[in-house]
Formats: sequence, structure tokens, C-alpha cells
Amino acid sequence: MHDSEGPLAGIRVLDLTVIMAGPIATMMLADQGADVIKIEPPQGDLLRKLGHKHQGMSGSFLSCNRSKRSLCVDIKTAAGLEVVKKLATTADVLVQNFRPGAIERMGLGEDVVRAIRPDIIYVSMSGFGESGPYAHQRVYDPVIQAISGLADIQRDRETGQPRMVRTVIPDKTTALTASQTISAALFARERSGKGQHIKLSMFDTMVAYLWPEASSSLSFVGNERDPTVGQLGLDLVFATRDGHITAGAVSDAEWQGMCRAFGREDLLEDPRFASAAARSENVIARRQVMSDEIAKWDRDQILARLDAEGVPNAPVLARTEVIENAQAAHNATIETFDDPELGPIRQPRPAARFSGTPSGIRGAAPDLGAHNTDILTDLGYSLTDIHDLETRDVLWSRRQAARHD
Amino acid sequence: MHDSEGPLAGIRVLDLTVIMAGPIATMMLADQGADVIKIEPPQGDLLRKLGHKHQGMSGSFLSCNRSKRSLCVDIKTAAGLEVVKKLATTADVLVQNFRPGAIERMGLGEDVVRAIRPDIIYVSMSGFGESGPYAHQRVYDPVIQAISGLADIQRDRETGQPRMVRTVIPDKTTALTASQTISAALFARERSGKGQHIKLSMFDTMVAYLWPEASSSLSFVGNERDPTVGQLGLDLVFATRDGHITAGAVSDAEWQGMCRAFGREDLLEDPRFASAAARSENVIARRQVMSDEIAKWDRDQILARLDAEGVPNAPVLARTEVIENAQAAHNATIETFDDPELGPIRQPRPAARFSGTPSGIRGAAPDLGAHNTDILTDLGYSLTDIHDLETRDVLWSRRQAARHD
Repeated sequence: MHDSEGPLAGIRVLDLTVIMAGPIATMMLADQGADVIKIEPPQGDLLRKLGHKHQGMSGSFLSCNRSKRSLCVDIKTAAGLEVVKKLATTADVLVQNFRPGAIERMGLGEDVVRAIRPDIIYVSMSGFGESGPYAHQRVYDPVIQAISGLADIQRDRETGQPRMVRTVIPDKTTALTASQTISAALFARERSGKGQHIKLSMFDTMVAYLWPEASSSLSFVGNERDPTVGQLGLDLVFATRDGHITAGAVSDAEWQGMCRAFGREDLLEDPRFASAAARSENVIARRQVMSDEIAKWDRDQILARLDAEGVPNAPVLARTEVIENAQAAHNATIETFDDPELGPIRQPRPAARFSGTPSGIRGAAPDLGAHNTDILTDLGYSLTDIHDLETRDVLWSRRQAARHD
Repeated sequence: MHDSEGPLAGIRVLDLTVIMAGPIATMMLADQGADVIKIEPPQGDLLRKLGHKHQGMSGSFLSCNRSKRSLCVDIKTAAGLEVVKKLATTADVLVQNFRPGAIERMGLGEDVVRAIRPDIIYVSMSGFGESGPYAHQRVYDPVIQAISGLADIQRDRETGQPRMVRTVIPDKTTALTASQTISAALFARERSGKGQHIKLSMFDTMVAYLWPEASSSLSFVGNERDPTVGQLGLDLVFATRDGHITAGAVSDAEWQGMCRAFGREDLLEDPRFASAAARSENVIARRQVMSDEIAKWDRDQILARLDAEGVPNAPVLARTEVIENAQAAHNATIETFDDPELGPIRQPRPAARFSGTPSGIRGAAPDLGAHNTDILTDLGYSLTDIHDLETRDVLWSRRQAARHD
């Protein structure tokens, strides 16, 4: 855990997003030093209730909302809206992912916010954009996987049945894209003094993300090639006697190393595999040889032999193994830190290492409304005011939400 | 196509990367207005030779290197190294993805570059980091898919066989992460005046990317739950009479809408599906009902019925269909523009729309060495100097590379 002076130190972000894409985006900013205030409705982000829990905290919620502060306020009340508007005068960025038109109805549309904070970077994230044939839909991740081409890419090689990827690629990729564009807009504002409105849809994000290599053969109008051609190759996943591995040999040197690793020097003479062109032509036969040979060994044994011969290789790790992996330990890819309430927490650190403005996890995810008092006190509310807002159900906390459950 | 005044206008990036992750990262910066100079070795980025081509230009290369300029120079010559060093004095960012130690041996390590450009943002991208058990490996995308847990996530539901995702998720995700961190470092430099060194590995990137939701049940030390539990559910992919769709019903209203869309109002009374809890308990039976009902309809017919009832839905589109999709057309997700050499080009625009600093595609990918003369002239080289460097094989172009092929 890290008391961050990251690259975004000094920036305040109001985060009105829920579930995945928005919260992951602002978490990255928080790990990089931004003061991210998660503004939650009375019952909190629905993600608090989903998945594996420990002492009432969801692991998913924690993993999308660490390093933030929580303000739980009912913005459907006049007093609640007033709190958020006061807070907006202190903010550099506001991020929202309500369905099109909703934030305007709540009284926090761009015009309203810009009137009180002229240089704000106002960010609207959506499933499909603000209009068009699909814009009215509630968007679940599989909808975007289906319509963006990702399920097409994952088609079963034998049956042609489209398949989903079993993790929310569209949500996570939209998160990364949002955090990048917010950072670029913050840079631009330093030079121009001007804020702006960034609009981003999951659909546009996924089309752009998949294109390089996955759709790039559609780049020349009038000279397209169907991108499925040649893309349904065999997975480079091989079974050993005690687990799966991947291994690949592209260059001559790597292929020769692979033959030696198998103890099959006789294959060095095989004309079917003598050049890159020949190996490409005989890909099925070669895949079979690799598969047969690798099946004869124990996992760690064959990995060591491949490695000694300079052949790219890796075990297929279960996620429970990833956290114990030697490279992960070497890189400190995963950190463990103590939370006073929750005990020891395990999280991946932000991937990039900044030499000048070190970034890192600043704490577990906050309890619902945990920072109500801190934040309102900073805005000039007295403890009496705050108590009054609690009594009137304008400010909420976990205890209060539980009473209404 | 767009003559960009994007958020990163005024920033110059020296891009010493090849293949995928690095080039995609700097392409995003180029679309946002940065002057990205791709510095290529004499034979060019290997990606120029791969995949579907049109008039000698690879669609993959184009889709990872649009909006950039190309300088082709042999930095293994003293005169070539001198060119790059002169250029570095004008640069804000340098990005490299050579294997650990290589850039230092070439004479362009961080110390050297920082001595001539003290506030540079120097970015090192790698497969596994600079040291540790896997750092010496040549990294192909499947290696990272295997070791990061992605192949584990994609395990076959019936056989348990791990599976790869058929697009280079680790490369693309590392690209997004790199462009975000570079943007954040540019922001920080505006405030502090200081550059820094950013180090980023594909392995760390993928562990961090997959964690929220895919590994988040490992967050509580001592109270972990195996993330594979419950994650091997049935794909929400359904066959109609003429194509595949996805559809999902989470809330009561959505489920009731789905029953009506099927013309199966009798299911509204079925106690197995009467509440969210009951539907979750009877997930297999419910999946079977959905599958059986959807199979009775034509694709567009059932999609329209689901839509009318407020049920989230989408067709599973082939990538050739994505480019014709009505929402893509409405959003102008994919742009077509004319390149003087290549003719009409199709590319996805950058996903985010910036109201104040509009971003966009600034042109196709450059021919090898297309901007040698422009760039060297700006650095003060005379045309005679430049001709001399060409004659001495310090500067290269496509024609020259072809002669040596």
C-alpha cells in the first residue's frame, strides 16, 4: 500500500458511475494519485451486493473501487443535489454512466455543472452512445461482445458456434480507454485552461480495440479479406502429464530448439519442417508432433527443457496459481496490505511503474458513505448540518442502508 | 480523416517499438494530436510484412500505425545514432520495447537520452519486466494469455481444456495501459516540469486487467474462493433459424418481457422462474427454455420482439457485418477516407469524442522512411547531407529495403 504522490496528485474526480467500466476507470486515476470521490445513491453501487464477500465487503466491489473515498447522498433531494453541486465547484473531472438523458433529469447535466465549474472535464460513458437504434437498451457486457465481433472471433473451430469471452472485456477495455482520454484532457487543460466534454461508448470502444489485427483485413475498401480466414487456427495449448502449457516456435532456431527439447533430433532432418514456409504449410502435422511429444513429459520438466533451448514457453496457470507464480513474486505484481477492518487484502498493483511520481494502491474500497463527514466538513458544512442531513435521509451510510434493505 | 488539434497537439513522440503493443499505444497518441515519429530499422517493422496486403501495404501495419510519420534509419551506424539523438532533443516522449538491456547497448538508454533531453518521458515496455525467471524470453501473445490466467478463464466448460482468446488481448491491453500512463505523465510534467521513466510489462498489465471480477474472489487473504467456481456458466449465445443472438433477462420485468416476446405468457406463472432467486436456482432449465424458444424464430424477428419488450438483446455479428451495422453507421464508428496512394481506407475512429480538442485519424500509415527528408530538414540537415546519408545506407526507404530483400 502506498501513500500516493502519483502523476495525478492534486486532481479531484467526482465519480457517479456504478458496476464496472466507470468504477475501474476512476480506480486507475485514484491509484495514480487523484482524489476520487465515489458518489453513491442511498443503497450504494449494486456491485457492493455481488460476488464473494468478506465481512460484508464484496471482492468485486473492492477490486473496482480501491483507493477511493465514498460519499453516499440522495441527489433526488434538493439538499443532496446542493451537496454535489458544491462539491463540483472543487472538482477537475466528473464521470457519469447513467443512461442517456438521465443525468440531465437529475439536474447535473453538463450545462449545469459547467456553469458552476467552467473548466471541468465532464465524461459521459454509455453502452452505445446517446442516440441510434441500440441507445435505449440496458447494456450488459455480453450484448457488446455479441455485436462488436468479439463473439465472432471466439467461434468454435469445429461447430462454428460463436462464443463469449468469460470475463468482461468490453467493460474493462472501456475503463482503460476512459482513463486514457481523461488523462489526455487533463494535460490539454493545463496548456489551454479549458475543460471539455468527453463522450465514450462501449460499442465504439470495442470496435476500435478489436480492429488492429482482428479486423484489419477489412481496411482496404474494395480489397477486403474476410478476417475469419486463417483465424480459426489451433490453440497453442498442450497437455503434459500433469497440466497444460503453451509453447511456440516461429524462427528456425526456435524450432530446432524445440526438437532438441523433445529429444527428437531426428525431426531436424524432416523436410516437412525444414523452413518457416514448410512448417507453415504442414501446420497440422507439426501441431500433432508437438502435441504428442509434449504429452510425454511432466509440465515442469518440459518447460525447463524448452526454456534451456530458447523456446518461448509458459505454463497455463489457474488464477489461484498466478498469485503464487515466481515472476509475479519477482515483479511484486500482486500486493498484500492490511486494512484495519477487513484484515489482509490482496490486489494487483497498477501495472506501470513511474520513476518520478510513484503510483500505487492507497487503500481498500470504502464503506458506503464512509467519508460523508470528511467531505462535507471540507465544504463548510457544520457537524450540526451534517447530522441534520443524515436525519433527513439526504446522507446515507452502510448502517442506514441496511435498515432500509 | 481529421487534421487533428487533439488533446496531445504539440507533443512529439519518438516511437522505437515494433509489432503490436507499442505501435498501438503510440497510434492512440497520434490520433489525439501528438506528432509520432516511428523510427524503423532498415528493413522496417516486421508487421509491414504480415497479413493481408494492398499495394504492398499490410492492413495490420496500417491499423497499428496510422496517423504517424516514418523515419527509417540504421541506428547501428554512428551517423544514424546521431540523427536519433538530435531528434531526441526535440522529443517529449520516447517509447521502446526492445528486450531488456538492448536499448542501452544501442546507445539510447535512459541516461543517454535524459542527458540530452532532461525532461523526457522515457517508456520501456516489456513482456515480463527487466528481470526475473521469464524476463529473458521472447514473448508471444499466447505466452501471456497462458501465464496470466486468461487461458484459464476460457477453459472449455465440458472438457476443462484451457483455451486462448483468438485476438491479442495482452498486446492491445498493454497498448491502452501504456497510452494512459504516458498521458498521465505528460500531465504531471506540465505541473512539475519533470520527466520520468515509466516501465510496463505485459504480464503485470494482464494480471491487473483480469483481476476485477475475474480474480477478485482472491482478494481476501485467508478467505479466498476459487474464481473458477460459478464462472463456467453457459454462454448467452442462442441460435435462431438464421443466425445467432444474445439476450438476457436479469430483472423480473426483463424476464416477463422475454416470456411475452416468446409468446409464452404461460411461463409467467411457472414457479421455477417466478423470482430472481428462483431463476438463478433453475438456471439450466431456464437456459433450455430460452434456447428452445429462440430457435423457433428468425433472427431479426425475435430481436425486434425482445426489443419491443425491453429485453436486452443483440445479434452476434460477424466482423464483416459490424462494418455495416446501423448503430455503427449512426455513431460513425468506422470512417472511410482516401489515401492518395492506397485509395479508400476503412478504419475505426478513436472511440472517445472530445468536444474541445477533437481527435481523429490523421492519415494512413506511412511508407517506410516516407518522412526522412522532412524530419532531417527540420533538424538542420541539408539536402546534400541527407543524400549522403542515403548513399551510406544510414537512411533507408521502401525502395532501398526492397533492393536488400
